[in-house]
Amino acid sequence: MEFRVEKDTFGELRVPADKYWGAQTQRSLQNFKIGGEKMPLEVIYALAHIKKAAAKVNVELGLLPKAKADAIVRAADEIMQGTYDEHFPLVVWQTGSGTQTNMNVNEVISRRGGELLRDNGSTAEIHPNDDVNKGQSSNDTFPSAMHIAAYLAVRQQVLPALEQLKITLEQKADEYRSLIKIGRTHLQDATPLTLGQEISAWAAMLEKGKRFIEGSAQSLLELAIGGTAVGTGLNAHPDFGAGVARAIGEELSTPFVPAENKFHALTSHDQLVHVHGALKALAGDLMKIANDVRFLASGPRSGIGELLIPENEPGSSIMPGKVNPTQSEAMTMVVCQVLGNDVTIGVAASQGNFQLNVFKPVIIHSFLQSCRLLADAMLSFEEHCARGIMANEPVIHRNLHNSLMLVTALNPHIGYEKAAQIAKLAHKEGLTLKEAALKLKLLTEEEFDRWVRPENMV
Amino acid sequence: MEFRVEKDTFGELRVPADKYWGAQTQRSLQNFKIGGEKMPLEVIYALAHIKKAAAKVNVELGLLPKAKADAIVRAADEIMQGTYDEHFPLVVWQTGSGTQTNMNVNEVISRRGGELLRDNGSTAEIHPNDDVNKGQSSNDTFPSAMHIAAYLAVRQQVLPALEQLKITLEQKADEYRSLIKIGRTHLQDATPLTLGQEISAWAAMLEKGKRFIEGSAQSLLELAIGGTAVGTGLNAHPDFGAGVARAIGEELSTPFVPAENKFHALTSHDQLVHVHGALKALAGDLMKIANDVRFLASGPRSGIGELLIPENEPGSSIMPGKVNPTQSEAMTMVVCQVLGNDVTIGVAASQGNFQLNVFKPVIIHSFLQSCRLLADAMLSFEEHCARGIMANEPVIHRNLHNSLMLVTALNPHIGYEKAAQIAKLAHKEGLTLKEAALKLKLLTEEEFDRWVRPENMV
Amino acid sequence: MEFRVEKDTFGELRVPADKYWGAQTQRSLQNFKIGGEKMPLEVIYALAHIKKAAAKVNVELGLLPKAKADAIVRAADEIMQGTYDEHFPLVVWQTGSGTQTNMNVNEVISRRGGELLRDNGSTAEIHPNDDVNKGQSSNDTFPSAMHIAAYLAVRQQVLPALEQLKITLEQKADEYRSLIKIGRTHLQDATPLTLGQEISAWAAMLEKGKRFIEGSAQSLLELAIGGTAVGTGLNAHPDFGAGVARAIGEELSTPFVPAENKFHALTSHDQLVHVHGALKALAGDLMKIANDVRFLASGPRSGIGELLIPENEPGSSIMPGKVNPTQSEAMTMVVCQVLGNDVTIGVAASQGNFQLNVFKPVIIHSFLQSCRLLADAMLSFEEHCARGIMANEPVIHRNLHNSLMLVTALNPHIGYEKAAQIAKLAHKEGLTLKEAALKLKLLTEEEFDRWVRPENMV
Amino acid sequence: MEFRVEKDTFGELRVPADKYWGAQTQRSLQNFKIGGEKMPLEVIYALAHIKKAAAKVNVELGLLPKAKADAIVRAADEIMQGTYDEHFPLVVWQTGSGTQTNMNVNEVISRRGGELLRDNGSTAEIHPNDDVNKGQSSNDTFPSAMHIAAYLAVRQQVLPALEQLKITLEQKADEYRSLIKIGRTHLQDATPLTLGQEISAWAAMLEKGKRFIEGSAQSLLELAIGGTAVGTGLNAHPDFGAGVARAIGEELSTPFVPAENKFHALTSHDQLVHVHGALKALAGDLMKIANDVRFLASGPRSGIGELLIPENEPGSSIMPGKVNPTQSEAMTMVVCQVLGNDVTIGVAASQGNFQLNVFKPVIIHSFLQSCRLLADAMLSFEEHCARGIMANEPVIHRNLHNSLMLVTALNPHIGYEKAAQIAKLAHKEGLTLKEAALKLKLLTEEEFDRWVRPENMV
Repeated sequence: MEFRVEKDTFGELRVPADKYWGAQTQRSLQNFKIGGEKMPLEVIYALAHIKKAAAKVNVELGLLPKAKADAIVRAADEIMQGTYDEHFPLVVWQTGSGTQTNMNVNEVISRRGGELLRDNGSTAEIHPNDDVNKGQSSNDTFPSAMHIAAYLAVRQQVLPALEQLKITLEQKADEYRSLIKIGRTHLQDATPLTLGQEISAWAAMLEKGKRFIEGSAQSLLELAIGGTAVGTGLNAHPDFGAGVARAIGEELSTPFVPAENKFHALTSHDQLVHVHGALKALAGDLMKIANDVRFLASGPRSGIGELLIPENEPGSSIMPGKVNPTQSEAMTMVVCQVLGNDVTIGVAASQGNFQLNVFKPVIIHSFLQSCRLLADAMLSFEEHCARGIMANEPVIHRNLHNSLMLVTALNPHIGYEKAAQIAKLAHKEGLTLKEAALKLKLLTEEEFDRWVRPENMV
Repeated sequence: MEFRVEKDTFGELRVPADKYWGAQTQRSLQNFKIGGEKMPLEVIYALAHIKKAAAKVNVELGLLPKAKADAIVRAADEIMQGTYDEHFPLVVWQTGSGTQTNMNVNEVISRRGGELLRDNGSTAEIHPNDDVNKGQSSNDTFPSAMHIAAYLAVRQQVLPALEQLKITLEQKADEYRSLIKIGRTHLQDATPLTLGQEISAWAAMLEKGKRFIEGSAQSLLELAIGGTAVGTGLNAHPDFGAGVARAIGEELSTPFVPAENKFHALTSHDQLVHVHGALKALAGDLMKIANDVRFLASGPRSGIGELLIPENEPGSSIMPGKVNPTQSEAMTMVVCQVLGNDVTIGVAASQGNFQLNVFKPVIIHSFLQSCRLLADAMLSFEEHCARGIMANEPVIHRNLHNSLMLVTALNPHIGYEKAAQIAKLAHKEGLTLKEAALKLKLLTEEEFDRWVRPENMV
Repeated sequence: MEFRVEKDTFGELRVPADKYWGAQTQRSLQNFKIGGEKMPLEVIYALAHIKKAAAKVNVELGLLPKAKADAIVRAADEIMQGTYDEHFPLVVWQTGSGTQTNMNVNEVISRRGGELLRDNGSTAEIHPNDDVNKGQSSNDTFPSAMHIAAYLAVRQQVLPALEQLKITLEQKADEYRSLIKIGRTHLQDATPLTLGQEISAWAAMLEKGKRFIEGSAQSLLELAIGGTAVGTGLNAHPDFGAGVARAIGEELSTPFVPAENKFHALTSHDQLVHVHGALKALAGDLMKIANDVRFLASGPRSGIGELLIPENEPGSSIMPGKVNPTQSEAMTMVVCQVLGNDVTIGVAASQGNFQLNVFKPVIIHSFLQSCRLLADAMLSFEEHCARGIMANEPVIHRNLHNSLMLVTALNPHIGYEKAAQIAKLAHKEGLTLKEAALKLKLLTEEEFDRWVRPENMV
Repeated sequence: MEFRVEKDTFGELRVPADKYWGAQTQRSLQNFKIGGEKMPLEVIYALAHIKKAAAKVNVELGLLPKAKADAIVRAADEIMQGTYDEHFPLVVWQTGSGTQTNMNVNEVISRRGGELLRDNGSTAEIHPNDDVNKGQSSNDTFPSAMHIAAYLAVRQQVLPALEQLKITLEQKADEYRSLIKIGRTHLQDATPLTLGQEISAWAAMLEKGKRFIEGSAQSLLELAIGGTAVGTGLNAHPDFGAGVARAIGEELSTPFVPAENKFHALTSHDQLVHVHGALKALAGDLMKIANDVRFLASGPRSGIGELLIPENEPGSSIMPGKVNPTQSEAMTMVVCQVLGNDVTIGVAASQGNFQLNVFKPVIIHSFLQSCRLLADAMLSFEEHCARGIMANEPVIHRNLHNSLMLVTALNPHIGYEKAAQIAKLAHKEGLTLKEAALKLKLLTEEEFDRWVRPENMV
């Protein structure tokens, strides 16, 4: 491997010759050999957005030469296109402010920007701190990048996947809106409902989750930019923050605004906790949906068996012909991860001190992981399971007509206690409800047939 | 102890003669000797609200005689006034639907209502199921009571306490809006800000928390009532749910509405997960505020010592004269409990099956505990700590003027790298910044004095 | 209410005349109006054990007059008998060191001890700090009390309850050791096992849990006593800690020892985290057992229905005759609480600073709550559910003989792929395995009957 | 890309021509496009150990031709050497039994083994199920692999890193065993101790953690192997499980044994919950250590400043010369992840149903992530921080001698209350303790000097 020598305020060190990063990135690489979880590229791209917008605003404010700014903008664009992904090697487990990743972006832009200047015949250098980071501190760029990346992940990943699954479930609910089946509460047979009604609850969960996420995610539109080191905006022009927020907003068609209170924006991540709470509410519902699907599809012969789900792959390395509800399993494992991430984020967000919370990388890493996993798992579940759900009508009919809980329809006519007598006798002696009712002489056959009609109970 | 004999569909059993509860309550008492955590009275009162409204609506719908309804209403009112608190002995760890507590309320109202009827010369009986529970199932009353109790706890406990603490912090922020002090990031000396700015971040956290809670709590206004056993509304008049929601809303001046999807309302508690996520976001901020206060007030001689907090009690059984930041300690312990409750609620909410989530009691117990603890802890912290916070100005001034990070003001003038040289030399040789700057001949004394002015840095 | 005036180093204040507590307890009452969770009596009693042992050792060391010590011992004994429970009114949400509860115990003993001295004609006073707390600090007594209380809760509550449930399950496993039934993996029909084998897994879980708890609880035998304020043992005789540990150990027949490193003992609660991790492992298993029981007992007609469980109470306020697996529900709610408590304890234990962790009350409160709930829930489940579990043999036989997964027995004879063909054909066409096998001409009827025998598969 | 056609019981599909995996792996790839978290290589290697041992045992039992077994052994060895890492492309979020990864290993060994056979002139094929998986099911191999991988991660990663950090801290404790400094409880000045004593608590935490981990990890030595599909051992020779456990044990010099109860081994992961609870106890201690280090090193001028830690990299993109405690930050972020993983694992382990827990991949993924992160973070912290910790003696001396809590030494001489008077006067009037003591005439100067000697207080 070939190296070049770079330096920062700590002195010189060797950097791989073919990499755009500089001394501070290299130091982080050497000092933090911890795990393999890379800083998510969503964060890198969000920082590139900030650097691009900052350069444009600094030109407008007369603080940066146009040529330099153009080079920064173009380098940032290249980063966002994924051209330099391998030049962002740092892990999540670095400084808690994300400074090293901010510097990584500054360094790559500085070096690539310098190339672009030289291509244009200029001999100017672009300084990672004085030019690329002008008007900024990691302490305001990094939390801004967290909000941008989180907002985009919610909007581009989670919500579309949720919508797709919701539509599929709504279609299923509609398809089976009239298919009457037994209800179950406490896992025990209960009064009937239609399969469409049952599935409509799942769709309603997704609709709720969508609203919770959309509502809470509004808080992510506030950006820390303009606060610099501690929130005072030292060394940034007073119009800088608002300008950068607006420029990023235009680029991304998203109404980003400067944070109301910059001191808050650096040291609190309550917004991300709040939004992840909404993701967790969704996750809990997904656990329930996935469990319902696999229990209702359990069998094929000795389970509940009211649903049929797609058979996607062999289920067992030893039991031939076995098919398992694996999409539900992947989903429920993802939910466990999201429940864990929620704790990680909640604890990390509680640990800020003074002017800065230094748990930023782990917060955004966990947040983006939850987004990615929930989105992917919803899409996978939709494609490989939900879309193919079918009612197993013979089983559904048999279960419905065996049910003792149809007795509930008699309450308004003969009262709870007599109705209970009928159900208990039927259960004890293995009778149908009608047989038991007649045996107890509590009503006539004609009355029974008039009152106990599942189609009137849903 | 004297007893009377009560019966239900399982047969007869003995109940303490002086208690209003009936057979099903007694069975629960005997079958669930688990822990000592009682079902919160907030839930009992919310159920009483439902029973009262249901009686009124059932009269309107012609389904219940006026005399019975009046007795039910009066008995429910007495319960809400706290007259019968000791007649609700059941613990949280009972059936997961809360059926036994719903029946406990039905039984107490039935018995007390019967007394009231007899007082009026009637010989009618009020049946706990057929009259008090008319048009209802535990499966819709209990989740309705959860939402009512949770919404009221947020509105009556959490938000007023939050507001009181926020106002106090805003006043402190205003009082110290011009007192310049050193900032700290990564626990290390950083650029200055005013004490008012520092405190304003705490107030801003509370403001955010308030908005998150208010926004998310809107979802609690939907009530399951009208869904009965599985969400179909079997045995309830079609207008019953909306009527009850409206009647409770009028009583409590709160716009309750029937749930959009009753199947969802019985089997998902995503709303409570979401709102508790907002409470957790607040809790994280409170951890941070309490930690900042106690670290800034640490000392009295060998800590940071920039704040003085009220001395409320002796701090040590062995160290005479020791005073501790105990309000911060109570607060941070409460936060740990809220973080735990968030997991309890999140897991419990994920475990619903089919038409019912049977983790209702533990969810509402944890939720209401968080509300109570957060509210009380904020009030206590406000009264016994925040209100008495004072700046320790000599320490603040000394720390400010010793700071090496004032060097940051030189970046725009001499660049980041030369500024770093100055700071490093000052640190290494124990110099002031100015001494180091002049020694390095990087700027003149006049320039230094003009550029490095804390009052221009905040 | 009548009052008397008490004083401490902060001055005078009024205390209810009929209460034994003193000024510092009163201050805590007034300053911490937070929630209603009282400091558990187990902690009070453990502190009384310490005070008693300390008095005895201080006499041996010549540091306390025998008469005073005798009075302290007797007062402590009275506390342990529950005579003064109402004199310990403090809540969990107080100072994080538990100092106020330590002083509460000191004050009650001081006052009650003074009475006893006067009864004996003495005019001496017992000082809460100088006498009752002699050689101690809250910083070593409180963590010692935490370990004593936690160890006893594990030994007296959790382990006996666990043992009782385990024995019942072992008996059931033995009773049904030969009853062959279908196995289920991924909720899907799988190869057979006996019901006894299935239940033996539950018993094995409890056995594992027992060993984990017993093993980890050994770490609780170390007591902080002797460390006083910061771990150095200042103001305590060098033999004091060991003497007190030994004395308590004799009293409780438990080999308590002084902590190896007293500095650790004050500032780390890793032992309680570790033991609670074992409780959580048990809780996870209990969730699984309770879920298995209720799913296997689901029905009565449209569930899996292989088990019959006791019918303990009416299950529904609207569905007559409905019976629910409520003991499972109480158990699984308890598990959710324990999962939450585990987070509370884990976070709290991570938040120590310098020489003291000041999250002690919330840690021990959560720990003891988990012990109580797990113990009670296991006993309740044992008595009201496990003991009465019965096999529903007709259902079990039907399910077994319908199963397609008996095909697995053919793997060694015809290979996985051909076996899969048989299972798939049977599934698709609703055939028995034998019918499918013969139709495919993959083996003879005689071979099938020889190879596919459930009794050889378990 | 070139493809070849593979088939399984579901039919044919295309597989990349240059990859060793087969049809089932390919199906999983296509059906589970979820996230990017690959099944950890530790699990792949552990499965390879199992396949190798199984082949050897199957030969011994006369169930597999020697030539095939040799080919399997060699292919497995190549996998363990990392030769085929890219041939294990499956993600964590697949079937919850890990079947697809088990089949991935079977398929790669089958294909590579076939090559080896052909190299030796044989025309035999190795079947992934009938040969490589002989006597096994994913249901026993995968949990066995979980235990093997977890045990090795603890032994090879966590414990050596812990030991290295512990030794360094013990050396520091020894180096500073006589340097007296102020203690701090509740963040407030307390009685003195030596810096060595303070650091010894950190070392003791690691020692405790080590014992907890070692003790609990013994439970991982039990392997599910031999249980096959549901725990009965169907299709495995009765000696197979013990033979495989012994063979793996010999290979890895580790006393693996077959699980006592195979039904437990498939459906409960209480052992991994228990061991991770020990890892969490360690994590809590590491949070505390890292926090202590950074608070004690806070400054450089306006913090506590008693410790000096290595300056590893520039700390700020805007504040020149700033150095931050970044190793502490990486460590505390890792702790947040471990706290989250503990919830993930605990919830996942509670969700088993019937004969199988189908949350296996997420459990082992989280477990191994915690091991890796804790190990790496301890090594990084040791190398880049702990090793370089130095006492800042001037600050330590100044803080010690300013302390008011030295007054505690007077308790045995003048009582707690008079000592408190002295401390309070000194605090109020800014006096030294001696000045205050003399002013109050509570003792003579000679007495003061004799009694208040920090060197006698530690």
